[in-house]
Amino acid sequence: MPNPTAAMLVIGDEILSGRTRDANMHFLAGQLSNRGIDLAEVRIVSDKHDKIVSSLNALRAEYDHVFTSGGIGPTHDDITADAVAAAFGVNVDIRDDARAILVAHYQRTGLELNAARLRMARIPDGASLIENPVSSAPGFTIGNVHVMAGVPAVFQAMVASVLPLLTSGQPLYSQSLCINRGEGEIAADLSALAADFPELSIGCYPFQRDGAFGANVVVRGQARAQVDAAMVRLSDLFPEAVA
Amino acid sequence: MPNPTAAMLVIGDEILSGRTRDANMHFLAGQLSNRGIDLAEVRIVSDKHDKIVSSLNALRAEYDHVFTSGGIGPTHDDITADAVAAAFGVNVDIRDDARAILVAHYQRTGLELNAARLRMARIPDGASLIENPVSSAPGFTIGNVHVMAGVPAVFQAMVASVLPLLTSGQPLYSQSLCINRGEGEIAADLSALAADFPELSIGCYPFQRDGAFGANVVVRGQARAQVDAAMVRLSDLFPEAVA
Repeated sequence: MPNPTAAMLVIGDEILSGRTRDANMHFLAGQLSNRGIDLAEVRIVSDKHDKIVSSLNALRAEYDHVFTSGGIGPTHDDITADAVAAAFGVNVDIRDDARAILVAHYQRTGLELNAARLRMARIPDGASLIENPVSSAPGFTIGNVHVMAGVPAVFQAMVASVLPLLTSGQPLYSQSLCINRGEGEIAADLSALAADFPELSIGCYPFQRDGAFGANVVVRGQARAQVDAAMVRLSDLFPEAVA
Repeated sequence: MPNPTAAMLVIGDEILSGRTRDANMHFLAGQLSNRGIDLAEVRIVSDKHDKIVSSLNALRAEYDHVFTSGGIGPTHDDITADAVAAAFGVNVDIRDDARAILVAHYQRTGLELNAARLRMARIPDGASLIENPVSSAPGFTIGNVHVMAGVPAVFQAMVASVLPLLTSGQPLYSQSLCINRGEGEIAADLSALAADFPELSIGCYPFQRDGAFGANVVVRGQARAQVDAAMVRLSDLFPEAVA
């Protein structure tokens, strides 16, 4: 059986403007990889309602799971819950279970549950809540879409709440070899190797270091014996390489 | 006149597998922002021909410019040139001008211009070459699509070759304020401010530091006087904040 597939939709201007460098995508990619869920596409879009709706509808039709980050806080630029509701054609409003979580949290912290904070209890009809052990305001799952916060600590906590609920695949077994030669010198051998092991993914990731070119060759596959066999061939071809 | 818009298409498995963290997107975002070109969307897809073709066709229809990174090296997993040619419905083959660049480079370095390396001279019909001062093998521009390498040093050099050729927009003027209060406490004031300055983009980017929540408020706009006026209002509202 093929592994489940996933996409991520990052919502927010801060990465597109160059202001901040992504962290959530890198975290999610690693987590999904460990669970054998194939992250096949990521899209990053700005805080525009129509764009969020159309991106979400494209991704949820194509992949088994969609993970979103960003836009579910209390401020005016937090429009994700409304966009998700629109994508699914359902109503969105303050929901009692989400409100109860916020009431308890703000009683505990002594802060006021004002109108802005109450916006974080706006949940699309039919969604189930995602627990947020960091700052309480929940994310939610609707259909195959998991809607989570953009603050990395909260995003990571929500991912930890969601992932155990999903069907895992078989994690890819992977091995890599660092070869201090230009890609062009090793390409023919790699191509022959890829042809001999059609069920493996053999990736070649070039780098430049101290003025010299090299490449990390990464062999991935579900069958450990095949990956190991390909690595033996690689080591024979490039005896000077470093695992 | 509105600023030109742009999208980026990152091609390659290494970010999706969680193996490496993106660097090129962050670099390009900053460069475009400086030139007043609005990066509106990024997609990251794996080395799959059909997916590259469909993503590229969607993005080039929607935005003024599309920048791609990755997949133009000499190895078997470098399939970008073929996918771009397919997206434009043109032929792709080894081209004399690109081959001449490689011949000169490999004569200089004393390395062999073998069949794998010659693949880097495969250029779609009608494309113009993008100079690569780092390792010679060129990128190319076809229509509104700029095809560049994935190795960060090479990507950056190619961006430097391409950007001066494009029509710039008006760079957004931006100011920011760091407020050590939770978003929920400042949301109502920010919302009122955003309503009073409809031509500005007022973003609120929450963070968590040493167990406390805070937010960076970023005000962006083309009219410096408006941005400054909004910042004066912000400083009055939150006198304890730090610029």
